[in-house]
Amino acid sequence: MTKPMGAVPAEFGADGSMLLIGGTRADELVRRAGETPLFVYDLGMVDARIDRFRAAFAEVELHYAIKANSYAPLLKHIGSRVDGLDVASAGEMELALASGTPAERISFAGPGKRDSELAAAIAAGVTINCESEGEAERALTIGRQARVRPKLAVRVNPDFEIKGSGMRMGGGAKPFGVDAERVPNLVRRIIDAGADWRGFHIFAGSQALDADSLIEAQRATLELAAALAEDIGAVPPLVNLGGGFGIPYFHGEQPLDVERVGEALGQALKGRHHLLAKSEFAIELGRWLVGEAGVYLTRIVDRKVSHGKTFLVTDGGMHHQLAASGNFGQVIRRNYPAAIASRMSEAPCEEVSIVGCLCTPLDRLADDILAPHADVGDVVAVFLAGAYGLSASPQAFLGHQPAGEITVGGAD
Amino acid sequence: MTKPMGAVPAEFGADGSMLLIGGTRADELVRRAGETPLFVYDLGMVDARIDRFRAAFAEVELHYAIKANSYAPLLKHIGSRVDGLDVASAGEMELALASGTPAERISFAGPGKRDSELAAAIAAGVTINCESEGEAERALTIGRQARVRPKLAVRVNPDFEIKGSGMRMGGGAKPFGVDAERVPNLVRRIIDAGADWRGFHIFAGSQALDADSLIEAQRATLELAAALAEDIGAVPPLVNLGGGFGIPYFHGEQPLDVERVGEALGQALKGRHHLLAKSEFAIELGRWLVGEAGVYLTRIVDRKVSHGKTFLVTDGGMHHQLAASGNFGQVIRRNYPAAIASRMSEAPCEEVSIVGCLCTPLDRLADDILAPHADVGDVVAVFLAGAYGLSASPQAFLGHQPAGEITVGGAD
Repeated sequence: MTKPMGAVPAEFGADGSMLLIGGTRADELVRRAGETPLFVYDLGMVDARIDRFRAAFAEVELHYAIKANSYAPLLKHIGSRVDGLDVASAGEMELALASGTPAERISFAGPGKRDSELAAAIAAGVTINCESEGEAERALTIGRQARVRPKLAVRVNPDFEIKGSGMRMGGGAKPFGVDAERVPNLVRRIIDAGADWRGFHIFAGSQALDADSLIEAQRATLELAAALAEDIGAVPPLVNLGGGFGIPYFHGEQPLDVERVGEALGQALKGRHHLLAKSEFAIELGRWLVGEAGVYLTRIVDRKVSHGKTFLVTDGGMHHQLAASGNFGQVIRRNYPAAIASRMSEAPCEEVSIVGCLCTPLDRLADDILAPHADVGDVVAVFLAGAYGLSASPQAFLGHQPAGEITVGGAD
Repeated sequence: MTKPMGAVPAEFGADGSMLLIGGTRADELVRRAGETPLFVYDLGMVDARIDRFRAAFAEVELHYAIKANSYAPLLKHIGSRVDGLDVASAGEMELALASGTPAERISFAGPGKRDSELAAAIAAGVTINCESEGEAERALTIGRQARVRPKLAVRVNPDFEIKGSGMRMGGGAKPFGVDAERVPNLVRRIIDAGADWRGFHIFAGSQALDADSLIEAQRATLELAAALAEDIGAVPPLVNLGGGFGIPYFHGEQPLDVERVGEALGQALKGRHHLLAKSEFAIELGRWLVGEAGVYLTRIVDRKVSHGKTFLVTDGGMHHQLAASGNFGQVIRRNYPAAIASRMSEAPCEEVSIVGCLCTPLDRLADDILAPHADVGDVVAVFLAGAYGLSASPQAFLGHQPAGEITVGGAD
């Protein structure tokens, strides 16, 4: 039985039979890169996302969570257009600094920071989002020893989470952040120790598509920040409201109404607690900024039939796009949007399964989809490959050749 | 509620409070490697597995599927002790050749072989397990053009699969191999074209723990090979019976009774079809040879409490051991066996969850297990890390530092 796919983002068109990415033909992009498999990132789509955010969230800073995609040219492009970068390791911090973003606009979150990572962040002047009392103490000690005043924010584990969130990162017992009721003591300790307290980082979930759930979580986040500030008796310089903006991957999912979220947040900010009057606010996004802008291109190397079922076998697979294979936290595998990039003008006429080249049944890119007739040499496009794609995949598995990456479009 | 773990393999002991791997203290191994996280592979355990196989399967060749673990020192060690290596990409083929194994003992399976990979295999004299008619034609053409007689076996998609197999690789429509009923025509084509036909590769499943299911599948495989040989009218030089030997990962799983499988196969081979009298037989194993011999060591960098629950946060995680995190094809996450390597003599006294350092809720190494009290600086051991560990994990995810690898023990 034919299985549905998610919707191809509306930005992608075709030139005759050939998929266009950022206005350039997919075959031309493959020629430029030299070979498939290839990730293409459309910087114009990223820019449009940034513009859309700016229009919807006038008073709020935009941060980019580089874990979503840290490909250097993409990172440099985004870094010059957003207000801050959030990193999750010393390695990512080095990438962020190398992209030209100054240290004072970089913050470092992550539950397992080593002493060497804390030392590197403090030396560089990057803000550390402390995930526990123990980590804060280690940072204070390292700062004292290095005679540098550390910039410390506190990551808060809120008592709520974004309803319907694709991934739960707040609410209940979590390895992330400090339980809200213990935050005031920790902030007082940070201030008393002479560190530069930068504020709160409050993350309540990710991959949310429902505006009402996000609105509710953001209101709760503002209330929590106000209550904490009142308890502490100090103004948080910055309140990072987290992110959580999702994108529709699967059949039937609807895109997030970002404008409605922005309007509601604007209202909530107008009525905010007086202690937060001079605070700055930030939203930290990864997936929503870059996810839809990425396409994974992989060439068909075999077309075969087994027991009446047609398989298109490609030169790519789960070693580059683990999430699309359904093996990255998903319980049930569903189809990402995919297309035959070299036959965009042809009508779907047969049911096929598209698999990768790995010698494992886990390596599936599209199950039982309806597609135009495609053969060896045709190129398959798997969409929604811009976030948590190549870097979140087991690239060394089975020793296949690496995927290329390339950007297209984007104003300079 | 406390959740159970799989059983720690019996080979691991302790020197006082410290875990011993291959007779060497875990802290000494970390000192040798320089740092955690670290994979340690006990070559003595691998040797014992090879010996056990040899004793149980007197007449059968042993092949190693290097996709399970291709760490060069391990591969070199195993390559000199088995009868063949199976590779799944040109990259793995290069590793196999570099390990000192001659080309005539290497075979290359995998559903998405590029022309360049086929050409490299043919030039090297490696046997190609053809996965489709199309691939066989491409190999014949490349051999003709290169004026080299290609060594071609046919991978058969059998109509049966190992019952209770952890991973289904045969039975029904599959991207692997050629449906059994089409195999005779393909083999005749290969022989008629003047290629060196090497026989069959028949793979019916993997990660099976039930001896009866394996015995049944191996009998069916022999029958299938005989029927195909009869239809073709030629003797297959080699029948690769596949592998599928599992290891117990989770609570309540029982190890495979390999000796019983060996005895049954010996019986079946005695009564085999006359056309197979001069054939050689091979079993191809990966996980069973190396899985239990590997231990992943990672150091605790934070100990924290959230809503009454204790988390031990380590410097490793799913970027090195994706399978243990429950995100590699598993539907339900269950605990691999784990221990506090530096507190082996202490009694379990508290419920903890062990997580990795990645800023994602997917990064879990052990959920709600009972463990001795452990703190920052203690080392956690996650067992069963020898197969599909580091190479099958998203190592670049979040830019953390890479894991080390080291071998211990093993006779020269």
